[in-house]
Amino acid sequence: MNPTDIKVIAFDADDTLWHNEQYFREAEEKFWALLEDYLPPHTTARELLITEMQNIALYGYGIKAFTLSMIETAIRITEGRITATSIQTIINFGKDILGKPVELLTGVEAVLQSLQGQYRLVVATKGDLLDQERKLKKSGLARYFHHIEIMSEKKESDYEKLIRHLDIAPSQFLMIGNSVKSDILPVLNIGGAAIHIPYHITWAHEHAEVNVDHAGFRQIGSIEEVVVVMGGSR
Amino acid sequence: MNPTDIKVIAFDADDTLWHNEQYFREAEEKFWALLEDYLPPHTTARELLITEMQNIALYGYGIKAFTLSMIETAIRITEGRITATSIQTIINFGKDILGKPVELLTGVEAVLQSLQGQYRLVVATKGDLLDQERKLKKSGLARYFHHIEIMSEKKESDYEKLIRHLDIAPSQFLMIGNSVKSDILPVLNIGGAAIHIPYHITWAHEHAEVNVDHAGFRQIGSIEEVVVVMGGSR
Repeated sequence: MNPTDIKVIAFDADDTLWHNEQYFREAEEKFWALLEDYLPPHTTARELLITEMQNIALYGYGIKAFTLSMIETAIRITEGRITATSIQTIINFGKDILGKPVELLTGVEAVLQSLQGQYRLVVATKGDLLDQERKLKKSGLARYFHHIEIMSEKKESDYEKLIRHLDIAPSQFLMIGNSVKSDILPVLNIGGAAIHIPYHITWAHEHAEVNVDHAGFRQIGSIEEVVVVMGGSR
Repeated sequence: MNPTDIKVIAFDADDTLWHNEQYFREAEEKFWALLEDYLPPHTTARELLITEMQNIALYGYGIKAFTLSMIETAIRITEGRITATSIQTIINFGKDILGKPVELLTGVEAVLQSLQGQYRLVVATKGDLLDQERKLKKSGLARYFHHIEIMSEKKESDYEKLIRHLDIAPSQFLMIGNSVKSDILPVLNIGGAAIHIPYHITWAHEHAEVNVDHAGFRQIGSIEEVVVVMGGSR
């Protein structure tokens, strides 16, 4: 990757700019506990993932999809014996995530400050439209970004559409994110550059082997190193 | 409104380009029937609307929000006596809407054909991101539009953001839609033009008095009349 080629830097949001997966994980643990009279936690976890994968084509990503999949899983694994009160509890698990504060990862704001003016910065994220907009607002980071792109999927064709919309060549596009599957591989495949910053927890659906040997690829330990990779202030 | 000023025409999607509210209405009627041992239909309808209004700031628009609000309403009005099986039935009401075919309103394609090339055409809609993208794809209309803008709200500030993004003046923007509250009033208020095409059913949340006296406003009976208002082929 040659930093001087890059015109637009797109940042994934959840677990790249701010903490997110931990809130889902907390909700999931409460969900496992709610159902432990029926199934051990690891089985409930597996059943929930099955439901989520079945529903993804229909529901897409985000907290509402997660909540509906929890309810459906609970009904299935209890064979209809779960009470309405427990289902309301599950709905509240989802609402609790929606109400969580936005906690930035260390160094995010300094990095954006350093990059702004040199590059056009955008947010490229999946999830619920309203929820992602609200988090960007709550984060106080909106002013650094040209716009927020909320994508129903992060596949090659979705990035091609985004890059066309940005009116740049793929080689002028750099994506930074924590998911190899969603943020890195599809971007490299269409001729863009990508920086992977692993987060300490990953949703099973986003797991992918990191074994990328590509001129446009870098892996770093924290977002603060982006400035080093991009050559600092120019 | 002077048609020669207009550069971008934005179309609302649901109940403007294709039928939508009728599918929600069908699902609601099944929902009323499911709960008729507890409450008469009109009371259930009122309770559901209360839940939807309470949840809108948290969930936004679309079928997933609608499904979650139905479940919550059912739990509340049955005082927790509704069975898990009935809740699965409610989840399926929502999934059924997601699987519905996209049925265009009469004359839509001819109108888009006539306007394309003369104006930049966009879709400006609320709802679930994935669902609206899927409907646009299913509709076969995607090629007429520069892009689809899925908005978390349709208030004045949301239209201002859209118009900035389109890089035009408000006076060069025309919105066409069936909701006075969401498609007409906010656009007129920020200096744009708007054409109202009433649909035969309106969600209670979108109800507003139509008593608009504004140079930028027109009301027509069907989308086919847009071509007449805009002066036909130029």
